[in-house]
Amino acid sequence: MSKGFLLVVSGPSGCGKGTVCKELFKRNEELIFSVSVTTRKPRNGEINGVNYFFIHEEKFNNMVENHEFLEYAQVHNNYYGTPKKFVLEKIEKGEVVVLEIDVQGALQVKKAYPEAVFIFLLPPSMNELKERIIKRGTETEKDINIRMKNAFKEIEFIDEYDYIVINDKVMDAVEKIETIITAEKLKVKRHKNIMEKIIS
Amino acid sequence: MSKGFLLVVSGPSGCGKGTVCKELFKRNEELIFSVSVTTRKPRNGEINGVNYFFIHEEKFNNMVENHEFLEYAQVHNNYYGTPKKFVLEKIEKGEVVVLEIDVQGALQVKKAYPEAVFIFLLPPSMNELKERIIKRGTETEKDINIRMKNAFKEIEFIDEYDYIVINDKVMDAVEKIETIITAEKLKVKRHKNIMEKIIS
Repeated sequence: MSKGFLLVVSGPSGCGKGTVCKELFKRNEELIFSVSVTTRKPRNGEINGVNYFFIHEEKFNNMVENHEFLEYAQVHNNYYGTPKKFVLEKIEKGEVVVLEIDVQGALQVKKAYPEAVFIFLLPPSMNELKERIIKRGTETEKDINIRMKNAFKEIEFIDEYDYIVINDKVMDAVEKIETIITAEKLKVKRHKNIMEKIIS
Repeated sequence: MSKGFLLVVSGPSGCGKGTVCKELFKRNEELIFSVSVTTRKPRNGEINGVNYFFIHEEKFNNMVENHEFLEYAQVHNNYYGTPKKFVLEKIEKGEVVVLEIDVQGALQVKKAYPEAVFIFLLPPSMNELKERIIKRGTETEKDINIRMKNAFKEIEFIDEYDYIVINDKVMDAVEKIETIITAEKLKVKRHKNIMEKIIS
């Protein structure tokens, strides 16, 4: 059996990583969704261990101190983090774990776990990105400008990533990610026992 | 425009790299066949610059001295080599150059040009490999044993390679190589100008 890997799908706000990952999971049921730990209260219908691992802030802080996160962040007074143990256990079993995350989070993961496979999802152009953020209709003009400034800054970190996928059409982007997954599974480093298998 | 790359398809004698590469070129006309330099005389129908670059031994020795080869070897009193210039020029133009070569040659290329993408083509088992060599009907029992011994030795170099493709069915192996090519084209390092393109 070969080893799995962590696939980090990341990119600036508005690049469409949510939509792309949703479609990716729909088409590839064998992929494992990286379940985050959070200190926020569960919403209606959310299941512990499926949507999130819901824990108290004290436990979260302990996990931070014990370096049990691949990355973590604070959003609106709540904490969110990616638990290392969950990811590594799945990988050992040969699974591909997908983590959809913003650029700041991906850069943290890169430091904690450089063996992961990093995909940078890009809009076809920065104008297109701006239009997508405007279309959401949830942001003020000031917010939009902040997001655009951040996007320009974030793109400068692209060299930290392995692959670049331009999200022009969602299905094309999903297919490209599927191709990357298939190719990554063929990497020699994930088949350390291959010699024994072939020789036997 | 993105940069191309050199794809080295290699593996032990009998792994089927000739058949797989023939099919790969048939299905993907945009791939560039890496044309070797040789000191042997052209055979009927062979065209200089297409099948080989035919040169004299003195010129070959000069090229060796000037480190103009990614690899070279002597076979039956003739010399064969992969000219660096041919490969690098195509790569600069964004082309994917495919080099089908034995393991010894691939290891030379790895030293001279580690940026290449290395695929190790494996038979499904060593018994299958032996049967394939026997089926050819061109080798004595002694030759077959030597080839098998070499194959066992060569497999130990698999860690020098990037990808492993098991050649159980030819078309499956070809499709896997096509997937690797598609994924490799998405590598960030081949799109150094992507930021300018997106931002503009």
